[in-house]
Amino acid sequence: MLTKMEAGRAVVEAKTRLGLTWQKLADVLDAPLAWTTAALLGQHPMSAEQAEAAASVLELGPDVVEALRAQPSRGALEDAVPTDPTIYRFYEVLQVYGPTIKELIHEKFGDGIMSAINFKLDVDRREDPGGERVVVTLDGKFLKYQWG
Amino acid sequence: MLTKMEAGRAVVEAKTRLGLTWQKLADVLDAPLAWTTAALLGQHPMSAEQAEAAASVLELGPDVVEALRAQPSRGALEDAVPTDPTIYRFYEVLQVYGPTIKELIHEKFGDGIMSAINFKLDVDRREDPGGERVVVTLDGKFLKYQWG
Amino acid sequence: MLTKMEAGRAVVEAKTRLGLTWQKLADVLDAPLAWTTAALLGQHPMSAEQAEAAASVLELGPDVVEALRAQPSRGALEDAVPTDPTIYRFYEVLQVYGPTIKELIHEKFGDGIMSAINFKLDVDRREDPGGERVVVTLDGKFLKYQWG
Amino acid sequence: MLTKMEAGRAVVEAKTRLGLTWQKLADVLDAPLAWTTAALLGQHPMSAEQAEAAASVLELGPDVVEALRAQPSRGALEDAVPTDPTIYRFYEVLQVYGPTIKELIHEKFGDGIMSAINFKLDVDRREDPGGERVVVTLDGKFLKYQWG
Amino acid sequence: MLTKMEAGRAVVEAKTRLGLTWQKLADVLDAPLAWTTAALLGQHPMSAEQAEAAASVLELGPDVVEALRAQPSRGALEDAVPTDPTIYRFYEVLQVYGPTIKELIHEKFGDGIMSAINFKLDVDRREDPGGERVVVTLDGKFLKYQWG
Amino acid sequence: MLTKMEAGRAVVEAKTRLGLTWQKLADVLDAPLAWTTAALLGQHPMSAEQAEAAASVLELGPDVVEALRAQPSRGALEDAVPTDPTIYRFYEVLQVYGPTIKELIHEKFGDGIMSAINFKLDVDRREDPGGERVVVTLDGKFLKYQWG
Amino acid sequence: MLTKMEAGRAVVEAKTRLGLTWQKLADVLDAPLAWTTAALLGQHPMSAEQAEAAASVLELGPDVVEALRAQPSRGALEDAVPTDPTIYRFYEVLQVYGPTIKELIHEKFGDGIMSAINFKLDVDRREDPGGERVVVTLDGKFLKYQWG
Amino acid sequence: MLTKMEAGRAVVEAKTRLGLTWQKLADVLDAPLAWTTAALLGQHPMSAEQAEAAASVLELGPDVVEALRAQPSRGALEDAVPTDPTIYRFYEVLQVYGPTIKELIHEKFGDGIMSAINFKLDVDRREDPGGERVVVTLDGKFLKYQWG
Amino acid sequence: MLTKMEAGRAVVEAKTRLGLTWQKLADVLDAPLAWTTAALLGQHPMSAEQAEAAASVLELGPDVVEALRAQPSRGALEDAVPTDPTIYRFYEVLQVYGPTIKELIHEKFGDGIMSAINFKLDVDRREDPGGERVVVTLDGKFLKYQWG
Amino acid sequence: MLTKMEAGRAVVEAKTRLGLTWQKLADVLDAPLAWTTAALLGQHPMSAEQAEAAASVLELGPDVVEALRAQPSRGALEDAVPTDPTIYRFYEVLQVYGPTIKELIHEKFGDGIMSAINFKLDVDRREDPGGERVVVTLDGKFLKYQWG
Repeated sequence: MLTKMEAGRAVVEAKTRLGLTWQKLADVLDAPLAWTTAALLGQHPMSAEQAEAAASVLELGPDVVEALRAQPSRGALEDAVPTDPTIYRFYEVLQVYGPTIKELIHEKFGDGIMSAINFKLDVDRREDPGGERVVVTLDGKFLKYQWG
Repeated sequence: MLTKMEAGRAVVEAKTRLGLTWQKLADVLDAPLAWTTAALLGQHPMSAEQAEAAASVLELGPDVVEALRAQPSRGALEDAVPTDPTIYRFYEVLQVYGPTIKELIHEKFGDGIMSAINFKLDVDRREDPGGERVVVTLDGKFLKYQWG
Repeated sequence: MLTKMEAGRAVVEAKTRLGLTWQKLADVLDAPLAWTTAALLGQHPMSAEQAEAAASVLELGPDVVEALRAQPSRGALEDAVPTDPTIYRFYEVLQVYGPTIKELIHEKFGDGIMSAINFKLDVDRREDPGGERVVVTLDGKFLKYQWG
Repeated sequence: MLTKMEAGRAVVEAKTRLGLTWQKLADVLDAPLAWTTAALLGQHPMSAEQAEAAASVLELGPDVVEALRAQPSRGALEDAVPTDPTIYRFYEVLQVYGPTIKELIHEKFGDGIMSAINFKLDVDRREDPGGERVVVTLDGKFLKYQWG
Repeated sequence: MLTKMEAGRAVVEAKTRLGLTWQKLADVLDAPLAWTTAALLGQHPMSAEQAEAAASVLELGPDVVEALRAQPSRGALEDAVPTDPTIYRFYEVLQVYGPTIKELIHEKFGDGIMSAINFKLDVDRREDPGGERVVVTLDGKFLKYQWG
Repeated sequence: MLTKMEAGRAVVEAKTRLGLTWQKLADVLDAPLAWTTAALLGQHPMSAEQAEAAASVLELGPDVVEALRAQPSRGALEDAVPTDPTIYRFYEVLQVYGPTIKELIHEKFGDGIMSAINFKLDVDRREDPGGERVVVTLDGKFLKYQWG
Repeated sequence: MLTKMEAGRAVVEAKTRLGLTWQKLADVLDAPLAWTTAALLGQHPMSAEQAEAAASVLELGPDVVEALRAQPSRGALEDAVPTDPTIYRFYEVLQVYGPTIKELIHEKFGDGIMSAINFKLDVDRREDPGGERVVVTLDGKFLKYQWG
Repeated sequence: MLTKMEAGRAVVEAKTRLGLTWQKLADVLDAPLAWTTAALLGQHPMSAEQAEAAASVLELGPDVVEALRAQPSRGALEDAVPTDPTIYRFYEVLQVYGPTIKELIHEKFGDGIMSAINFKLDVDRREDPGGERVVVTLDGKFLKYQWG
Repeated sequence: MLTKMEAGRAVVEAKTRLGLTWQKLADVLDAPLAWTTAALLGQHPMSAEQAEAAASVLELGPDVVEALRAQPSRGALEDAVPTDPTIYRFYEVLQVYGPTIKELIHEKFGDGIMSAINFKLDVDRREDPGGERVVVTLDGKFLKYQWG
Repeated sequence: MLTKMEAGRAVVEAKTRLGLTWQKLADVLDAPLAWTTAALLGQHPMSAEQAEAAASVLELGPDVVEALRAQPSRGALEDAVPTDPTIYRFYEVLQVYGPTIKELIHEKFGDGIMSAINFKLDVDRREDPGGERVVVTLDGKFLKYQWG
């Protein structure tokens, strides 16, 4: 059986070879774009229907289907501090603005956290006179510290 | 002279003692909320006017003014992997969705990154039938890999 | 102003000097025992009333009150892997049984986590013919992975 | 010969393919659920009878039997700080409540530890008006510091 | 499919076997020398034409072409602190002169950074009475800290 | 006696308070700009004349003079991987281009290194239609691997 | 109040100044030598009588008494891998012979551990024709892996 | 050729399959038990006679013989801090009692170390009313710090 | 193609099998002993003649020749702190005497370093009444800190 | 009481202020140069006579005398991998030549180590047509692996 990581690499390879896009794959699955990408990269389990639909359009076999359905052990970074510049910038945001985000969550909501489980994210493109911008929206349920 | 870290602690203390909010401080400075918070926590340099206005409403002295104006050496996390749960969830988002965000930036923009320098962020509250939600928007200029 | 860590040390010192117990302090605050202990060690913010009641019985001053009320930056271990044997055993449980707990949560609840925010814990003593036993109960809301 | 880790992966794969559950496997072995899961994941040695009974229902061969019987070198986390969110929450509990648990063990038992060897754990599901809850019970013999 | 790392090793091997140079390969691609080297080592994606031209002169097959075209996950050091002396000296420059470079960028440009994305570098040889010198020029666009 | 680190902080503070620049300080010392900055930040020892001239224009006392003259234990980064974005970009250059620089040094010079001891650097500003650019030139003697 | 670490340093200092030995201190306390040393270095809590007797012979004050009585947070090494050669050799023994000791415990006792809680140690001197030898005896109760 | 690590795994496997014990193997080699175990696990080189005698009783081939004879690069722990509980307890002993052992060596012998090279160890079983005990004896030559 | 590491392992294996010594190999190459050993272990590139002469006497094939000639990426330790006792002692020398060596280089030469590039080393055996001694001589060109 | 580290800093400061050299201090003590330097930097204990003689010529007080006499906890590097270039080069020697030294010790002496306890070192200056050279001689007793 393939690991979910290996299945993810097979997905990226097939997607490139066939000239597919993550958007096309999300359309096939009728699922949100970022969720679809994360699931195909091995960070979420897929239902049997989703896994089969994805494997079919990617022309991949039953071992990939099985891997896409499996429960993941999550965590996609190779190092605690990522080295790839595209990913590192988000770590840098955390380094520079982490305590700022914490202060503002506490000011607007009280003592608690943004859930990363009841959570969704979007990556959008916004045109701007100063040049196009990447807009990443993190949207998670507020969970209040609550004793029992 | 105070370090910017020490000035930041003095700011938090005075803000709590005086019953101020980050929003009130941002209003006084007529500056964006998250920028104001980050600057007062020591991650951005302030202009003389901003530093004096902030120190005045916080009833803090000239050493804090001087520290708020100084050029920061940025980086606000005590450990490479943050331990505070409110901040950790954002690290977890990076662990689970980092490669997803990377894939989508490349699909939508090509080879490059979201700038963390020409960048702004917002922390918002959205009401939802399932409970209020934290919405953090990261908005940075796309920078294309370009040789010289 | 004291940090919450320093306030916690002052609490432990006063508690020892006055011959108090965590149970007695929890009774004074009319709050759960483990929550009270964690809050007095600096891992939860207290209300003004709680902080003043605790400081009063501990014969501590207003700087401790202020620190006990402050929002914590959580994380109480000095090292990523704890060295104290009483705490290490719980890390060892995680090393040996972490994936077991994960498998059983997934089998009994589906894909998700036990919340550490909507959460309580108890430390109990159970008599047993083989010798008394420590029973630690971790009780957190199940949070299902849910996209938005 | 398979390592215990490889045998554990073969077990999870077979269990998924055959639609079995850890509970079913525990019933077959007539052993506690969490112990069975841990042993099949490679953290405890099994007796010949147990290993053969498990392999038989999982339709696995003698190399798995041999691996399940072998003495483990324990430790199941890939990193000192786990990245998988379901497991991380327990590390977070340790970060936030580790010293609290230590204080309460000392208050209720004196100077010593909860054994992680003479030890059992349960993962239970409790219905609650606020939503179902994960209840993990750690139950270990108290060991008093004792010189010789 | 080969990873970009494996393709890079195949490139180095073929280049050595065929007695080629990075300069020769850059001439074939009509691309800057350092960019060509970095791309062939797997740190930049190549266009189809470039990848095919490079593979052709290196007498390598279509799997290398495919790998050279793929989007990289960048980061070429095996350890956070490099051990190879030729590379380490640049880390040492950062250890000794990092804050100096930072001060001078701030003095000459204001608060901001040198882009490593809109960036090029050259490695040159300069004759000098005291012996030949390595001259490495890092040339990146200045990015000013700018809120949104 | 002050450490060189403490003297460096006193220098930065005085320089800011007096409205001086690193260039002005370099002119006073009649020394290269980057060397002056590095020496005043504590990474090079100064001669008695240099230390006194610098302290005089910075209006600092004999303890700073003594510290500026002392032999440094070099190394100016707080962490092995720097967190400040202005410095981090140079670490990123090393991550992405380290092996490229190594390959080109070996191609142009043979087996050896660029010295970081017989070495100088410049930070320059270059106007460009696409926006001003930071140009950092590293210039070190080539040292050939040579057995004795 | 002194920390136990600070009290330990005060003990070592007084012991040296007064020309005392650990053996003499153990005799005063009528306690085992190694236990006495460990307790005075802050790794075990002392009874009121022991702490007062020790402080009295060491001519130290009530703050040391209080610190010696306090419950320790154990862990006496400054780094995960000790640098002091006298201590390092024991880490080296663990590196070279750790799995050997594990195999022999399992062969002689079955699946379990040597307790480090119900435990004592001795450091002895043995004369030998080849030169005097250090003999360290670790003596802990065998704890069998036992589910509940 | 097998590495010594691979040979060690082959030894453990054969020993289990054939129902042998480390004691039996030591008897065959007429060598001390712990030395034999360490050597068969790859931490000491064996003579040709020993390697052949061991391979013969373990029914292993000439590649194992060759590996057992080879000079080891010693170090048997997978992590700097071991995770296996049976081995960890010895690390814990070092964490809690390391400085105690150091103090007692210096008190009894002067400035120096216990050799880990001119060294032997034993793992024994001692019956005790309170339960059987593991007794590990470390016995190394005292080496005095001596300049040349 | 073999990596230089793999070629190094093949060299050690062949040398053992054929009963050769490093000295014999150095004689064949007519090169210094330590240089020869380092080069055959993969830390220096060999000329075609050297590589072929070495492979010939070691009865190894053209893939080893090619690997021995390749430019190395240097760094031979598996961990930042070596675990093998024979190598560790040199790390310990650095831990205990590093600043001593630095002070003496500065006293005897001024501000600078011993080159590790224009460098040779010898490992010698010296008879001594107190027992034979290992004498390692490190001999590198002094490089003075020199700006440009 | 001063720590040995603090005493070492006081020694360096006084030595600089009084224009003394390590050689002069060694002459005063009639002790080897490197030993004297190491002892004054806190890595060896001094006799009462040596400590008093050193303090006298350095014009330092009885607290320094007491610290110089105390038993050290050895280890003088701030980081596991040193950052100072003068010290780093020796770490680099270990990275590049560590296994070479190990091979040659085994070839010339058999299985064992160079003692770092029965050990001395010298730092010498050798004139050479190619420029002056630093010669560091490490000279330690060979210790053979010997079981008991």
